[in-house]
Amino acid sequence: MKILVLNCGSSSIKYALYNMDDNSVMASGGAERVGLDGAFVKVKLPNGEKRQVMHDIPEHTEGVKFIFSLLTDPEIGAIKDLKEIDAVGHRMVHGGEKFNKSVVLDDEVLRVFEECSDLAPLHNPANLKGVKAVSELMPGLPQVGVFDTAFHQTMPKHSYLYAIPYDLYKEYGVRRYGFHGTSHRYVSQRVCEFLGVNAADKKIITCHIGNGGSIAAVDGGKCVDTSMGLTPLEGLMMGTRSGDIDGGAITFLQKKLNLDADGMSNLLNKKSGVAGVSGVSSDMREVDAAAQEGNELAKTALDMYNYRIKKYVGAYTAAMGGCDIIVFTAGVGENQSSMREEVCENMEWMGIKLDKEKNSAVHGEEAVISTPDSKVTVVVIPTDEELMIATDTMNLL
Amino acid sequence: MKILVLNCGSSSIKYALYNMDDNSVMASGGAERVGLDGAFVKVKLPNGEKRQVMHDIPEHTEGVKFIFSLLTDPEIGAIKDLKEIDAVGHRMVHGGEKFNKSVVLDDEVLRVFEECSDLAPLHNPANLKGVKAVSELMPGLPQVGVFDTAFHQTMPKHSYLYAIPYDLYKEYGVRRYGFHGTSHRYVSQRVCEFLGVNAADKKIITCHIGNGGSIAAVDGGKCVDTSMGLTPLEGLMMGTRSGDIDGGAITFLQKKLNLDADGMSNLLNKKSGVAGVSGVSSDMREVDAAAQEGNELAKTALDMYNYRIKKYVGAYTAAMGGCDIIVFTAGVGENQSSMREEVCENMEWMGIKLDKEKNSAVHGEEAVISTPDSKVTVVVIPTDEELMIATDTMNLL
Repeated sequence: MKILVLNCGSSSIKYALYNMDDNSVMASGGAERVGLDGAFVKVKLPNGEKRQVMHDIPEHTEGVKFIFSLLTDPEIGAIKDLKEIDAVGHRMVHGGEKFNKSVVLDDEVLRVFEECSDLAPLHNPANLKGVKAVSELMPGLPQVGVFDTAFHQTMPKHSYLYAIPYDLYKEYGVRRYGFHGTSHRYVSQRVCEFLGVNAADKKIITCHIGNGGSIAAVDGGKCVDTSMGLTPLEGLMMGTRSGDIDGGAITFLQKKLNLDADGMSNLLNKKSGVAGVSGVSSDMREVDAAAQEGNELAKTALDMYNYRIKKYVGAYTAAMGGCDIIVFTAGVGENQSSMREEVCENMEWMGIKLDKEKNSAVHGEEAVISTPDSKVTVVVIPTDEELMIATDTMNLL
Repeated sequence: MKILVLNCGSSSIKYALYNMDDNSVMASGGAERVGLDGAFVKVKLPNGEKRQVMHDIPEHTEGVKFIFSLLTDPEIGAIKDLKEIDAVGHRMVHGGEKFNKSVVLDDEVLRVFEECSDLAPLHNPANLKGVKAVSELMPGLPQVGVFDTAFHQTMPKHSYLYAIPYDLYKEYGVRRYGFHGTSHRYVSQRVCEFLGVNAADKKIITCHIGNGGSIAAVDGGKCVDTSMGLTPLEGLMMGTRSGDIDGGAITFLQKKLNLDADGMSNLLNKKSGVAGVSGVSSDMREVDAAAQEGNELAKTALDMYNYRIKKYVGAYTAAMGGCDIIVFTAGVGENQSSMREEVCENMEWMGIKLDKEKNSAVHGEEAVISTPDSKVTVVVIPTDEELMIATDTMNLL
């Protein structure tokens, strides 16, 4: 079975074609600058070679069409005929309270998904465009939606409600939803396979630490809390996002800087985080380098970044009444061993013993990085949201 | 030595006269509705009897003058002559980064304190009015300022900085300051005396849970983190305050409800928290009663309230690399045993074993409520900010 995974953003379309017989990626790539001047598609060929193809992409249907043509290109294509594709799985961002698992997309589902657009006005409409483009180009091809928020729908009320007037939850859906759900689901399941343990018995903290970052508490396979909220701003310090901040600081700054809600949102989402504190970059590798060269603000930014992850690990262990496994994943989580070391330092009180040597050698591969006698098993698991989407799609057909 | 403690708010003046020979309270009470119609003073006589005296109080000097007259009243007064008062200690709210301990008030100190008013525009000017009233009525009487923020000034940078552009910290002082510092300092010291242990060796979490609430991590006698921030909005769920909330939810709601910064601040500070979620009351006793009668939203509010305290206990244990002592104090912390039980439930993983029977019997008194074999000692310590202010004042003279 061959499944195409699509991730349509407002100005980008990422894709990966899976052969589900062996979970291998037959082709992958992405269109960028969709709807803008200078659009192009990056293609990774089955042999690993990379190409970049300029192509005018005024809107999503044209983008999907061009990706289809690349997939069947006589020279660089991975398949001969589009009919070889059995289904398309879409990454869809905000399923609100409507979707707690992946679903086959039909008119009714799309109507309900559209109702959630208010909660993700940039992302959901772009996701929809991708679905409609496929429907137009290959009518009748089964399509599946995999929601970023779905895995977190098992959170209990005391985790997901904010302490604001209850009517604002009922009327506007203001609550914690959480994001990166497909990644948290994948790594929390995968780590149990990898360790040969039963997810139903385990309390797991999954740390998805990339340019965006979130942590989830997964008890017996179910998410019971996560750090992102109504929006992906809450929680950890991120590349350009503030994460947790006093609401009083927000209204204070709005008055000082004369910012309306959009202006403040822009400041907190795009000019804050590691970039805002360090003044160096939103890229942790560059900030790390600057810190090693003695840049004090870069060092402070790293300290804050790691400290906040550590506090969430403590908080979620309390939330679950214990912790058996901690997983690090995503760009920073898989690669930045210094972050993992600092998060796990002085955590013997809760039974974490990191194998520092092992930890510093692990980059982007599945590996246990705690000592054999550590009560909490600390593991690196590279995330694979695309494979999860392809798997969900296959299982629903 | 006799010391008068004053706590001047924008429309209230609380006072307590201490005899420092035995730390006893000779007289106490408070003026309310200062500057408003129908002002009055509540007086507690040395014999415990309470009186309420109507008196027109257009501004703070008149209020302080009237309190002085009550203190020396032939019938209900506690002293014969104002000259018996050796000094006045003031509760002062926001010392910014300028004050890390209590200080004798002089012109220079008051000038610097006035510079902090921007951070507490309602509270600091009222505190100043109290100081000036005393200077006017009893020139030359020594006065001491005890700051709500001072104890938290030992926090390291990674605890107190927000992940926003660093310039906003430099320019506007936007950072975590924390409040209830005098209470956190008092109970963290007092619990060590009570247990006969050395504060320098102990990692203590102090939970000041009242109508406002905050938690502090106190390592070796020094505060290393606390839940309130630039303002007293951040952190725990409170009577009418939201505590922690996604910044993205704030800007989302501002747009939905068409609220400016002041309107949003009002919503988060005065209409949220336990009152906002339960729809019942901001008073935990009433919410508790409603929950016991089966009110689902009241029950949800309590669950949220306790869950958030529990998460902070976990987070701060991680912050300190362990925890030896947990203190509960203030109105709810000293009295609501069900809250303490829920916070300590399923916390065996970090070494907490609550003695449930003992816990349910303790209200407003110093007592250990954990079992003898609990690794973490859980203690109730009634707070006494006024005594702390009086003690600081005495020590500075």
